Amino acid sequence: MSDTNKKTQLSELGEFGLIDHLTKNIEIKNNSTLKGVGDDAAVLSYPDKKIVVTTDLLTEGIHFNLMYTPLKHLGYKAVVVNLSDVFAMNAIPRQITVSMALSSKFSVEALDELYAGINSACEKYGVDLVGGDTTPSLTGLTLSITAIGEATEEDITYRSGANVHDLVCVSGDLGGAYMGLQLLERENEVFKVNPNEQPQLEGYEYILQRQLKPEARGDVVELLKKLGIKPNAMIDISDGLSSDLMHICKNSKVGCNIYEDKIPLDMQTKQFAQELNINPLVAALNGGEDYELLFTVPLKHYDTIKKEFDFTVIGHITEASEGTNLITTGGSVIPLQAQGWNPLKNNS
Amino acid sequence: MSDTNKKTQLSELGEFGLIDHLTKNIEIKNNSTLKGVGDDAAVLSYPDKKIVVTTDLLTEGIHFNLMYTPLKHLGYKAVVVNLSDVFAMNAIPRQITVSMALSSKFSVEALDELYAGINSACEKYGVDLVGGDTTPSLTGLTLSITAIGEATEEDITYRSGANVHDLVCVSGDLGGAYMGLQLLERENEVFKVNPNEQPQLEGYEYILQRQLKPEARGDVVELLKKLGIKPNAMIDISDGLSSDLMHICKNSKVGCNIYEDKIPLDMQTKQFAQELNINPLVAALNGGEDYELLFTVPLKHYDTIKKEFDFTVIGHITEASEGTNLITTGGSVIPLQAQGWNPLKNNS
Repeated sequence: MSDTNKKTQLSELGEFGLIDHLTKNIEIKNNSTLKGVGDDAAVLSYPDKKIVVTTDLLTEGIHFNLMYTPLKHLGYKAVVVNLSDVFAMNAIPRQITVSMALSSKFSVEALDELYAGINSACEKYGVDLVGGDTTPSLTGLTLSITAIGEATEEDITYRSGANVHDLVCVSGDLGGAYMGLQLLERENEVFKVNPNEQPQLEGYEYILQRQLKPEARGDVVELLKKLGIKPNAMIDISDGLSSDLMHICKNSKVGCNIYEDKIPLDMQTKQFAQELNINPLVAALNGGEDYELLFTVPLKHYDTIKKEFDFTVIGHITEASEGTNLITTGGSVIPLQAQGWNPLKNNS
Repeated sequence: MSDTNKKTQLSELGEFGLIDHLTKNIEIKNNSTLKGVGDDAAVLSYPDKKIVVTTDLLTEGIHFNLMYTPLKHLGYKAVVVNLSDVFAMNAIPRQITVSMALSSKFSVEALDELYAGINSACEKYGVDLVGGDTTPSLTGLTLSITAIGEATEEDITYRSGANVHDLVCVSGDLGGAYMGLQLLERENEVFKVNPNEQPQLEGYEYILQRQLKPEARGDVVELLKKLGIKPNAMIDISDGLSSDLMHICKNSKVGCNIYEDKIPLDMQTKQFAQELNINPLVAALNGGEDYELLFTVPLKHYDTIKKEFDFTVIGHITEASEGTNLITTGGSVIPLQAQGWNPLKNNS
């Protein structure tokens, strides 16, 4: 797991020694953090803002495979996934707690790698690590992160605010994280057969990064503020465009039409999809893990949104009775389908 | 797991159906909860109070054994453990988030049992369930709960405030949860050999309840307020009196003397310890999971504390140079020892 040679058993430090070791370099960055790690609970202060709270659980074998996910990347991504949910509320993340259950196969050095990733994400997004729990597990690694952020009441954007005629917009491009995962899984299979063969990853750096080191789009929240646009509804794309847009439509009691030829795809996503004989649209609709923001804005903002290189208008909101549809390049109307995990599929 | 006969596969509901199913009856109890489950994040409001945040992770095979822990009790206890940390800050819990990773061996009915316990604890302690994550796992069950509470800045009690000459006090009695666990493990071994033999639990209802359905001592926080006493330092006893008192002493840079003959033990704890040929003092010092509150108060409150049936003065705070000691009935001075989990011991 760790590429250093030294392997210190967790038992050499014990629980309290381990906590001290992992938290000794933490410096508080936010005024709202009055007390971080080291007591029964952290103490925060938000007299003038509303607080948003979100949490995610990642388990080995389901959300990540340590065969091809470096622990540092895993730590980084685990934080980013939660910050993405805070940004999706149009809020700014300030604190996280990190809990982990780990088996004795992990060394102190491996945990240091994981924490290096966690700390790096905290650094990049200006977030304080204020608490957590480190506990043994009989099997593998489970990570649970809770993120806390702030926003004024007026700024907070719910899934439920979309209105008929709103523009449906996304940031960045979609499907890359899914194609990156396909690439990693392919190379992992090759490695199992022939451990001496070098992985063929060249030319696919972007989709690998989308899978291994995604970023949360805090810059989009800032940009929208700068443009004077408050989205009517917003969600981050974690399950895939299809599911996440359906969440907005269900919560807002509206329908939507989005257009196949408008969905933003990166060149590498298209190229690797072609190599695997997959339609890249499927990766965008159902792949998930892109952590882009999906939002709806009033029609009047069309010109402003259009000018932003990073935003794409992919469709519009309709009456609920019209359903949630994809309009293909050929003009066919195809109902969107929700994904989400399926315990039978993922879990034997 | 569940004692109903119907077993609905999780896959029949899918992720979003399962979330709807588990959260459909939630009613918001606190004004500070503006938005609970159903968006990217919950939204809370604490304009006049400080916020305390704490989190715990429980894993199957380490923190609980489903052979003898009913799922409803597990859900209840998982919540209580976190609320106990909030009370230990002298604060009042208001919200929780609940994340779980579960394998396909669990049915919807089993999850309903678990949630019945979680909801029952929320009901009893007036807490809102405002978010979470439900996700597959390859093996067993992991539960991660975060609790959020409120207090005025003056009321918050840290581990670091103990002063020399303070009285060391505990609520309730100690060691019961540990002896309850020994009893359950003994009966589980008997059951494995002879499944037809009825478990011998009679007369030990109290220690069983201490293990299976502990309560968090919010009543102690209330009582101290009523008595006009603000502890200088406070912690909840989750790892055992010894470790938790050492946390206070380390954080407060003080020492302590506690007295063997003052440590409160219930009759059933003593009785079952005798049956197993264990010193019940060891259960109190190192057993953990009692979730009583351990606190220090200025000497002037001695008479007030003495009058309260539920409080016991077990010793006093000394200079750090004197160390952290147990004074035995015979007058010997024995240094306290920290426990915490040991990954090698618990985890093969």
